[in-house]
Amino acid sequence: MAVRVGILGATGAVGQRFIQLLENHPTFELAALTASEASAGKTYGEAAKWRVNAPIPEDVAEMTVTETAPEAVPDDVDLLFSSLPSGVAADVEPGFLHEGYVVSSNSSNDRMAPDVPLTIPEVNPGHLELIEVQRDERGWDGALVKNPNCSTITMVPTLAALDRFGLENVHVSTLQAVSGAGYSGVTSMEIIDNAVPHIGGEESKMETESRKLLGDFDGAELSLHEMDVAASCNRIPTLDGHLENVFAETAEDVSPEDAAEAMRDYPNVDLHSSPEQLIHVFEDPSRPQPRLDRERGNGMQISAGGIQETAGGLKYNCLAHNTIRGAAGASLLNGELLVEEGYI
Amino acid sequence: MAVRVGILGATGAVGQRFIQLLENHPTFELAALTASEASAGKTYGEAAKWRVNAPIPEDVAEMTVTETAPEAVPDDVDLLFSSLPSGVAADVEPGFLHEGYVVSSNSSNDRMAPDVPLTIPEVNPGHLELIEVQRDERGWDGALVKNPNCSTITMVPTLAALDRFGLENVHVSTLQAVSGAGYSGVTSMEIIDNAVPHIGGEESKMETESRKLLGDFDGAELSLHEMDVAASCNRIPTLDGHLENVFAETAEDVSPEDAAEAMRDYPNVDLHSSPEQLIHVFEDPSRPQPRLDRERGNGMQISAGGIQETAGGLKYNCLAHNTIRGAAGASLLNGELLVEEGYI
Amino acid sequence: MAVRVGILGATGAVGQRFIQLLENHPTFELAALTASEASAGKTYGEAAKWRVNAPIPEDVAEMTVTETAPEAVPDDVDLLFSSLPSGVAADVEPGFLHEGYVVSSNSSNDRMAPDVPLTIPEVNPGHLELIEVQRDERGWDGALVKNPNCSTITMVPTLAALDRFGLENVHVSTLQAVSGAGYSGVTSMEIIDNAVPHIGGEESKMETESRKLLGDFDGAELSLHEMDVAASCNRIPTLDGHLENVFAETAEDVSPEDAAEAMRDYPNVDLHSSPEQLIHVFEDPSRPQPRLDRERGNGMQISAGGIQETAGGLKYNCLAHNTIRGAAGASLLNGELLVEEGYI
Amino acid sequence: MAVRVGILGATGAVGQRFIQLLENHPTFELAALTASEASAGKTYGEAAKWRVNAPIPEDVAEMTVTETAPEAVPDDVDLLFSSLPSGVAADVEPGFLHEGYVVSSNSSNDRMAPDVPLTIPEVNPGHLELIEVQRDERGWDGALVKNPNCSTITMVPTLAALDRFGLENVHVSTLQAVSGAGYSGVTSMEIIDNAVPHIGGEESKMETESRKLLGDFDGAELSLHEMDVAASCNRIPTLDGHLENVFAETAEDVSPEDAAEAMRDYPNVDLHSSPEQLIHVFEDPSRPQPRLDRERGNGMQISAGGIQETAGGLKYNCLAHNTIRGAAGASLLNGELLVEEGYI
Repeated sequence: MAVRVGILGATGAVGQRFIQLLENHPTFELAALTASEASAGKTYGEAAKWRVNAPIPEDVAEMTVTETAPEAVPDDVDLLFSSLPSGVAADVEPGFLHEGYVVSSNSSNDRMAPDVPLTIPEVNPGHLELIEVQRDERGWDGALVKNPNCSTITMVPTLAALDRFGLENVHVSTLQAVSGAGYSGVTSMEIIDNAVPHIGGEESKMETESRKLLGDFDGAELSLHEMDVAASCNRIPTLDGHLENVFAETAEDVSPEDAAEAMRDYPNVDLHSSPEQLIHVFEDPSRPQPRLDRERGNGMQISAGGIQETAGGLKYNCLAHNTIRGAAGASLLNGELLVEEGYI
Repeated sequence: MAVRVGILGATGAVGQRFIQLLENHPTFELAALTASEASAGKTYGEAAKWRVNAPIPEDVAEMTVTETAPEAVPDDVDLLFSSLPSGVAADVEPGFLHEGYVVSSNSSNDRMAPDVPLTIPEVNPGHLELIEVQRDERGWDGALVKNPNCSTITMVPTLAALDRFGLENVHVSTLQAVSGAGYSGVTSMEIIDNAVPHIGGEESKMETESRKLLGDFDGAELSLHEMDVAASCNRIPTLDGHLENVFAETAEDVSPEDAAEAMRDYPNVDLHSSPEQLIHVFEDPSRPQPRLDRERGNGMQISAGGIQETAGGLKYNCLAHNTIRGAAGASLLNGELLVEEGYI
Repeated sequence: MAVRVGILGATGAVGQRFIQLLENHPTFELAALTASEASAGKTYGEAAKWRVNAPIPEDVAEMTVTETAPEAVPDDVDLLFSSLPSGVAADVEPGFLHEGYVVSSNSSNDRMAPDVPLTIPEVNPGHLELIEVQRDERGWDGALVKNPNCSTITMVPTLAALDRFGLENVHVSTLQAVSGAGYSGVTSMEIIDNAVPHIGGEESKMETESRKLLGDFDGAELSLHEMDVAASCNRIPTLDGHLENVFAETAEDVSPEDAAEAMRDYPNVDLHSSPEQLIHVFEDPSRPQPRLDRERGNGMQISAGGIQETAGGLKYNCLAHNTIRGAAGASLLNGELLVEEGYI
Repeated sequence: MAVRVGILGATGAVGQRFIQLLENHPTFELAALTASEASAGKTYGEAAKWRVNAPIPEDVAEMTVTETAPEAVPDDVDLLFSSLPSGVAADVEPGFLHEGYVVSSNSSNDRMAPDVPLTIPEVNPGHLELIEVQRDERGWDGALVKNPNCSTITMVPTLAALDRFGLENVHVSTLQAVSGAGYSGVTSMEIIDNAVPHIGGEESKMETESRKLLGDFDGAELSLHEMDVAASCNRIPTLDGHLENVFAETAEDVSPEDAAEAMRDYPNVDLHSSPEQLIHVFEDPSRPQPRLDRERGNGMQISAGGIQETAGGLKYNCLAHNTIRGAAGASLLNGELLVEEGYI
């Protein structure tokens, strides 16, 4: 049976990815598109500056965009995906939650709130039970679930696989694609023949979100994982796909072979948008590479490679498609988990 | 008084940089250019496919290129700069040394040999005394000095500055420019809209050379620094300038302010090609950036920035021009040190 | 019924595209792969450095590569696609033709030979009858068909559509992707932050091939179209997709609307790999763009846009995927035409 | 004797180039910097986001930025350079002219006004006499001189050289660098692995400005050159330097050798910022290239190459640095001409 879904902030870059990913979805039916006041009342075709390199689905082009307000969204919409700028999201998401909507949000506000599940379905589906805590505390009829930042989600599945050996220290450097900053986030003058070793707020997101994702939830409270994480984040002249160099120290000694096996065998979930295998591990040390590997598993698979021993542990590289697995696809997958777990 | 110098492997990318850097040198006078057999006998203008974005100096264009063999180089040449491929260098450098030439070499062979000084004049000029050991052991009349790999030299001055706090562990990720692989080393299909997390041999060069550079020489033997270094090396679509993310753990606690001061105040040397200040430290966390900062100090200054505390120590970024400070300029500066110290 | 096909020069960039395009072909069955001597005897998986961003089809990876010689190719192969370097093709194609093979070749040798059809199925399918002339003159049992150069094929369908108004003069400038030069044809140092206004031999290919493609074949002889064509060819830092600016002067006055209509309504052919509509005409003057539009029609559609009047006629832009419509897809489509027309 | 100059719109990309070019100017002394209201009162160091890859001159960093209004600029300023957005310039330039300031403006407003000289000092210095007409008609005490658009100025010196053979028809395609759109004009998502065949208004600027620049001024009226010009303008992923393919038809037959000679021998002017030779003509058909040749003559020389015969005339390529010769350097040179001709 179809689940009626809406997109809050549908005209932006992530909003466009949502539309693309929902195009042939077996159970989700697109029923609402919201955007800023300036777009309200226009058809989506008029309101959006479409930049995906496949034509805009015709029926979506004809849909009318509404304001981003609970009263503007049809009551029979079951699930909302949010890709609003975080400042806007902080203002308007609570209104939807009070009205009883279930919101799967990619926006960065409230990700670290103790009663908001920050979820990757393959990694910590149990955190969804925080919704009970959330409803108790906030008096919401709806439910709010967040997915992590694109740079966090690229690394965390591999860390989850290694945590059986007792993660203690993680150092990570990122080589991030320009699409992570939105369509106009990085100018060409800034990045051609260049790299920028700073992305505002990104490092602390990686350092804290990863500890929440791997943290323990005892039914009442969520405690952060005890590992230390230090991140350095860089923007490079790549369109899509975040590549990361991870140095991981574990309590137990781990061989590169054991690490590869732990990643390859990491248990998967049975959701429509989840890849067959969560983590693909390359033998070729020159892989993964953004352009060659970001589309694996329709952009939902994590790639890893170059696993080697260091004095203190392991080093390896990992990669994910930042606007699919790292944004729209992450929220979508959380939506599928919410349905599976009976929250919708 | 002029020092007569020659370039072994003068037609390649690093060879061309040597010519550019020697153009207005106050004491070095270019007197010999060698290349492969195919180029011998031609004028340099005919033999070299000139790719520097300033015209080839006219007098150099008229010079005749010779084979890379001691008998082809005039006897009155005092100092040779070598930018030969390392396999070739391993074959031909010893011949020049037996004939009494002093060779300042950028080639990677023999960098870790216990009797070959691996030198950055501002960091470990005292290692030059290894030449005595070298002459004793090898029976050479000449002297061989190496400079480190371009990715090593970008990081080591900043580590040298921090070593007063007792370096214990270093993790480093590099974002390296394509020029580091030579003119044809990286194809456009490989790197546009992409990044490659593997550069053959590069990681172990960084991990070992840095420990030699910061090692102790007791007059007889050189011992490696005891710190652990783990490196991940990446190629990105940038023309020149290697950017590196460093995570450094020290015995003593160090504040970012103290680290910045240690870098800014790091003692300099008084050589023609040495920058006024060895390390420029930026306050702006988005700097250094390759395109904006690689030309600082005529490509000889190291830039650093983004210094922050981590759980275990510090993180920061550093940058150097890989074909100037990281190759031709490094050998040139070693040549100037050799003159200063009386080896020529 | 399946047509058994082989690829001459299967390991190169265009060879890899052939394999990709043949993967789910309804009638062509891949039965032979040839390459240079060094690859003969290896499996394709071993021999090819696979660079397409989708995995190599498993059954193809297991096939054994043979030498490029008639005796090495199974007799029951009906059709050969050739993507050999033109010098090699000039040497070995005749041998296959003497042995009776039908060869659809992307190699540039013999394209302008008066008895070799140079064909775009949608534009000049009738030129295929030159095969009779060819067999008479050369004594071949087989048949040789060529497709034009990637830069020619991008422009010619639009010119064919406009020729009803009497083409007289064409000026064209190209902005060509690096993949047109093969995987290693353009180094990154050559093209990042740059453009190169010269591609050896390309301009004269455009100037002559276009006149042959639009020429008249009277059953005995092919006469070139009388228009003048002047081309300037440039390489730019784009991976795939050639963009071209065309200035066309016609005998009759043509409005931009009439030109657009002539392009949109240009008759199509009913072959598997032909797009539904040959030429897509954009209203948005900023389109077509290589990255956004090269994949239209699975890389087989021509895009046009920006049609405007000039003092002497019209100007407009056109685009095609250079390694699909401009190379492997072009040969494949010619192969489909050969089957349709009963030559196989 | 020093000429006191000011910059209207000093914080933008072209404004920053002005400051760089004025740094060691022998006769111009920087005395005023204006910007938008938001910057007024700040030091230039605070107000400008400095993006030139050389440090901001220290004395300039300390200067106070004022509003862009005549009353905010010291009376003893002799000459103003304007790099305001054209809408702003149309509003505020007349006020300065009424107050008697001489303005050398890079802004596109009024370039085609019949009483405003549009000048390249080496090409049409005599057009400066239009200032008399301008003063008569507008009642200005000051004087307004414009320089052409960056894409126009790249081509026009070569056309001026060829006009001795009687220019009749010009077709031109441009490959333009992103800096031409200002620092934030082209996003990275728009241009990496791409090209855009449309720059708003650019084509008509080239088509009309070139005819004014080569037009005749009879002392009272300026008539446009009779040639037809058709332009197609493209943005490509290059930082600086516009490359153009020109097809020129002339009344007389011209050989490539004669064309090259006409360009090489084109008379120069004796102004500080004019290059020694106006047009450098390459023999190597692969030159000029943006990255290799844009800095020739400190960014003020035009490069040409690839001159060949076509059916109707000639084709060739030309290049200039778009933010130096094509913007700030063009206005500066016009300023030097104004001094030379006694207007200041």
